[in-house]
Amino acid sequence: MINVGIIGYGYWGPNLVRNFAEVEGARVAAVSDLDGNRLSKAKLSYPAIETSADHRELLADAAIDAIVVATPVSTHFELARDALAAGKHVLVEKPISTTSDEARRLIEEADSAQKVLMVDHTFLYTGAVRKIRQLIDDGKVGRLLHYDSVRINLGLFQHDVNVLWDLAVHDLSIMDYLLDRLPVAVSADAVANVAGQPENTAYLTCFFDDDTMAHIHVNWLSPVKIRRTIISGDRQMVVYDDLEPSDKVKVYDSGITLSDDPEMLVGYRTGDVWIPKLDRTEALFAEAQHFVDCVSGNAAPTTGGETALRVVRLLEAASESAKSNGKRVEV
Amino acid sequence: MINVGIIGYGYWGPNLVRNFAEVEGARVAAVSDLDGNRLSKAKLSYPAIETSADHRELLADAAIDAIVVATPVSTHFELARDALAAGKHVLVEKPISTTSDEARRLIEEADSAQKVLMVDHTFLYTGAVRKIRQLIDDGKVGRLLHYDSVRINLGLFQHDVNVLWDLAVHDLSIMDYLLDRLPVAVSADAVANVAGQPENTAYLTCFFDDDTMAHIHVNWLSPVKIRRTIISGDRQMVVYDDLEPSDKVKVYDSGITLSDDPEMLVGYRTGDVWIPKLDRTEALFAEAQHFVDCVSGNAAPTTGGETALRVVRLLEAASESAKSNGKRVEV
Amino acid sequence: MINVGIIGYGYWGPNLVRNFAEVEGARVAAVSDLDGNRLSKAKLSYPAIETSADHRELLADAAIDAIVVATPVSTHFELARDALAAGKHVLVEKPISTTSDEARRLIEEADSAQKVLMVDHTFLYTGAVRKIRQLIDDGKVGRLLHYDSVRINLGLFQHDVNVLWDLAVHDLSIMDYLLDRLPVAVSADAVANVAGQPENTAYLTCFFDDDTMAHIHVNWLSPVKIRRTIISGDRQMVVYDDLEPSDKVKVYDSGITLSDDPEMLVGYRTGDVWIPKLDRTEALFAEAQHFVDCVSGNAAPTTGGETALRVVRLLEAASESAKSNGKRVEV
Amino acid sequence: MINVGIIGYGYWGPNLVRNFAEVEGARVAAVSDLDGNRLSKAKLSYPAIETSADHRELLADAAIDAIVVATPVSTHFELARDALAAGKHVLVEKPISTTSDEARRLIEEADSAQKVLMVDHTFLYTGAVRKIRQLIDDGKVGRLLHYDSVRINLGLFQHDVNVLWDLAVHDLSIMDYLLDRLPVAVSADAVANVAGQPENTAYLTCFFDDDTMAHIHVNWLSPVKIRRTIISGDRQMVVYDDLEPSDKVKVYDSGITLSDDPEMLVGYRTGDVWIPKLDRTEALFAEAQHFVDCVSGNAAPTTGGETALRVVRLLEAASESAKSNGKRVEV
Repeated sequence: MINVGIIGYGYWGPNLVRNFAEVEGARVAAVSDLDGNRLSKAKLSYPAIETSADHRELLADAAIDAIVVATPVSTHFELARDALAAGKHVLVEKPISTTSDEARRLIEEADSAQKVLMVDHTFLYTGAVRKIRQLIDDGKVGRLLHYDSVRINLGLFQHDVNVLWDLAVHDLSIMDYLLDRLPVAVSADAVANVAGQPENTAYLTCFFDDDTMAHIHVNWLSPVKIRRTIISGDRQMVVYDDLEPSDKVKVYDSGITLSDDPEMLVGYRTGDVWIPKLDRTEALFAEAQHFVDCVSGNAAPTTGGETALRVVRLLEAASESAKSNGKRVEV
Repeated sequence: MINVGIIGYGYWGPNLVRNFAEVEGARVAAVSDLDGNRLSKAKLSYPAIETSADHRELLADAAIDAIVVATPVSTHFELARDALAAGKHVLVEKPISTTSDEARRLIEEADSAQKVLMVDHTFLYTGAVRKIRQLIDDGKVGRLLHYDSVRINLGLFQHDVNVLWDLAVHDLSIMDYLLDRLPVAVSADAVANVAGQPENTAYLTCFFDDDTMAHIHVNWLSPVKIRRTIISGDRQMVVYDDLEPSDKVKVYDSGITLSDDPEMLVGYRTGDVWIPKLDRTEALFAEAQHFVDCVSGNAAPTTGGETALRVVRLLEAASESAKSNGKRVEV
Repeated sequence: MINVGIIGYGYWGPNLVRNFAEVEGARVAAVSDLDGNRLSKAKLSYPAIETSADHRELLADAAIDAIVVATPVSTHFELARDALAAGKHVLVEKPISTTSDEARRLIEEADSAQKVLMVDHTFLYTGAVRKIRQLIDDGKVGRLLHYDSVRINLGLFQHDVNVLWDLAVHDLSIMDYLLDRLPVAVSADAVANVAGQPENTAYLTCFFDDDTMAHIHVNWLSPVKIRRTIISGDRQMVVYDDLEPSDKVKVYDSGITLSDDPEMLVGYRTGDVWIPKLDRTEALFAEAQHFVDCVSGNAAPTTGGETALRVVRLLEAASESAKSNGKRVEV
Repeated sequence: MINVGIIGYGYWGPNLVRNFAEVEGARVAAVSDLDGNRLSKAKLSYPAIETSADHRELLADAAIDAIVVATPVSTHFELARDALAAGKHVLVEKPISTTSDEARRLIEEADSAQKVLMVDHTFLYTGAVRKIRQLIDDGKVGRLLHYDSVRINLGLFQHDVNVLWDLAVHDLSIMDYLLDRLPVAVSADAVANVAGQPENTAYLTCFFDDDTMAHIHVNWLSPVKIRRTIISGDRQMVVYDDLEPSDKVKVYDSGITLSDDPEMLVGYRTGDVWIPKLDRTEALFAEAQHFVDCVSGNAAPTTGGETALRVVRLLEAASESAKSNGKRVEV
């Protein structure tokens, strides 16, 4: 039985507790939060769980095997480092840290402590993203030409992170998983429409070592909610619309074909569309189960430290670019 | 009666003839095209129209008052210049020319010849764009915070222009009309996935002298067709979806409100949505009628030379930026 | 403090417990179910709640003020009757009973016991249905011409009730609430595609004492899920699409206008569309609160016995019609 | 060369002329209409076509091989009969006549005259309907369980026909083509909300010799336009949405499976969805070409007299039922 301690019972904490509670071979032993009201709520829903206002009690508890860090981003590094130092396996909310340097130190810490370090890139555990990865792996998509992702809505302005670190972190983790290679450079433009507040709108472009271009639009100021990724390959094209209740992934047998005809170098194909049935397991449950498997030594993290680091490196480069009028920053 | 001559009977030519034929006070007197088959088609549909393989016959015809240039972009300047020189009023397909220098010369030519020079920025004559302009003019939208436009589909690769000059020209003309001010700088990234072909995917960002940011995504490689502009003001927000059969413009009584509460500087409003009824007159007919009114001296062009020039200047700057790794280019 | 006992912890029971737990002035004291596993689940989630395999323990418990009956339809009458006889206020799942005779007896029982009798017609507590009712009350819709409701999807074949009693009960309760008058006759056609199973597809038409016609389509065999009601008045028209995440109610300033012109007796209006913002309180919470208010003597049930009876009478008439080749059955 | 004469140049006439003009081996020789303005329009667009205010001139013209009747429904029979009597092949707008008796007489007339008699059931020439027919023929859909069709919008109130004869004629012709068998009985309810005007809303149910049920909803009073047919088989299910710009036909690998498990007689399958690419030839062009092929003796009509008769028989039965409070009328 893996005993899990959860630090932070804010927006995401209750989801973590609910899902870890259902993972066979694991139980949520304790929850900590600085806010007493939240602890009361946790106690009301799950009376068997210990609660504490001091996360150090969880770290000191020898019965606890693994720690989940679900606190504001600025605290991720310190809490994860301390948990690893206390001999715990650690799952950290996204992004794993605020700098790539911190991410690297966590990787080293986990390596030397021989503990699992995992980041909560939840989307990589969805049936939709896994299906798209499989299509790419099977060669269905062909050579990737273009990747475009939009994640916008009228969203809560965050105080400690801007829209890149709040929303683009999802798109970058999905892109990293699907494309399986790192951009060579990144450029970003971002704007803060409210003085003294973080940037609420940003565009991020990723350049690779060939003609592939990836682009991400994130925004807290859109009256309509959009969550759509378009992946254009030279064989098939995929549209992933996360707001569709069931038809989230559409595969288009469309594209261009090159010909030798000098008059008509580019030919067009439009064909059938296929909407594959997706595994509908709740992503966070699949992830919790995977973390427990990793802790038990039965699996290696899909979203381990290196994955987390790559995403932070891209966010770091994007932030640097945004501060430099969008100039391309090498990764 | 205004006699109109149309040079070019390709994709757009038949639409021009059909609409000018219905404008009271005007008639299509002649059509020229280099392609004999096209001329036969024109003759079959409109036997009363003169056809010619040589556009100079139209320019030389004293009975013709006005010329419409609907030929490939690279020929716009020369044909428009010659038509003005021949004492004709001129309506030119978008974009008016391939350089801002050419556009300036056409403006001068028209000024000195005292003739009407107009560009076919068709969208400015739609009920949708005119309604949005009215909402902005009436102060409904408030201070503009963000402008985002997407115009993508699996489109024909053009040979003589890239996707910026083919598609973004629409978004820039709409943006110019709605925002009524010029960006101070532009940055663009573009990629050509087919060697030897023009760029098929491009992102363009416009920066203004305040915190407003505008962004345009144009693309010939998307399996789904999208034509959507989101305009976020601090009072109301507008979504313009040109693919909606009737509900093209949605006005959201949503947005953010600044407060003095240091804990909660930004408040959120979500309210009713309003879908105004739009004038459904065909845009090209409204434009043809407007051109005839201008030629008759009863109106001044909504889309005159200066408008055309501003859009070409933005396209020029975008092209320069795209060639310089997306660096910001002042306009 | 109102102590609530809940009989039945199947599909709907957990939702009832969760919502009553949040109503101020009420607490869930006990839950009963014949299935021990379900009771364990209830205990796990809410350790403070008493559980019992015998609902009679709840009826005998003097501390319990009110009973919620959330069991299969065939048991509603008996359980509600016994609860009223035991001096409890009662909220019964929809439909309140399997016959109008039973519904009448429950009304009498509640009257003589001076207890609250309420039925769980949840949709009447949604922001959407309440907004439409308000539009009708305010005269916005005008004279009602037509009512059409579709509630279809690939649904679980029920064993104890057919699709009319499972799904049309919702449409009839909404219609009863919005139109506020009883049809004079009903006709229905229903088919069971699986031998020995209840009818899975049904069409039901309601006739009123004027030219208003209402029609309901319910179906467990549709590959697409649809939940849409169209209400056409002679002033405005309303479309209620319950699957829309936020734009559930659309009000169309469209319709027909009668004129004296003998050539053109019917004129057409199409105008703006308006999407009102809706109260997003969870319907079941609003209903639980309302039940507690009624029990406390501070309100009279919106969905009391007479409401429940009217809906059962319509279902009864529809069933009779369906058995008689769809002949009209007077209500 | 087949010479075609077209009687009636109202709403549909120009489409007929335009399409027949493009069919190889045919030419539109003459058009007649009682309205001089319409004839002027025809002359303006197609100066080579003879026009006449008297359709008898077309019938008397020995050079004309085939007549298309595109006049109000009440005149179809007489005009078609006279055309056949004059030795012409005939294509008649839908519905072919106002009574089945008239349809039978046209069939006899065509038989004895050895001329082609065809009805313009345009939808049977669309890529969508043909693809669905092919899916059914290939056994993909399996045993048909349910057929549901909705064709509603805010439509022009017709003067000479009610909504059944105006709109349901489409659904019935499509259903007849796809199911390829005649219902045994029909029931219909219809209402006229405007005194003295034809019925504007109708529901029609078709019963077959097994448990298949088909239902059609047609309506001129809906603020939203819907054109959707759901075809549920026991193997696959098809949704045909004619308003979708390209994804008109969706094939669902979903349904129910019967099992021997007494606890769970009905199992559920949800699977992939497939959107086949459709032939996008304009239906009316395909139909015009087919008619010319039939006239040339190279094909037999897909929508010949017997097809037309079956649809009229169903409309007749529906009308009778609607007048008898919806009682089932045998076909």
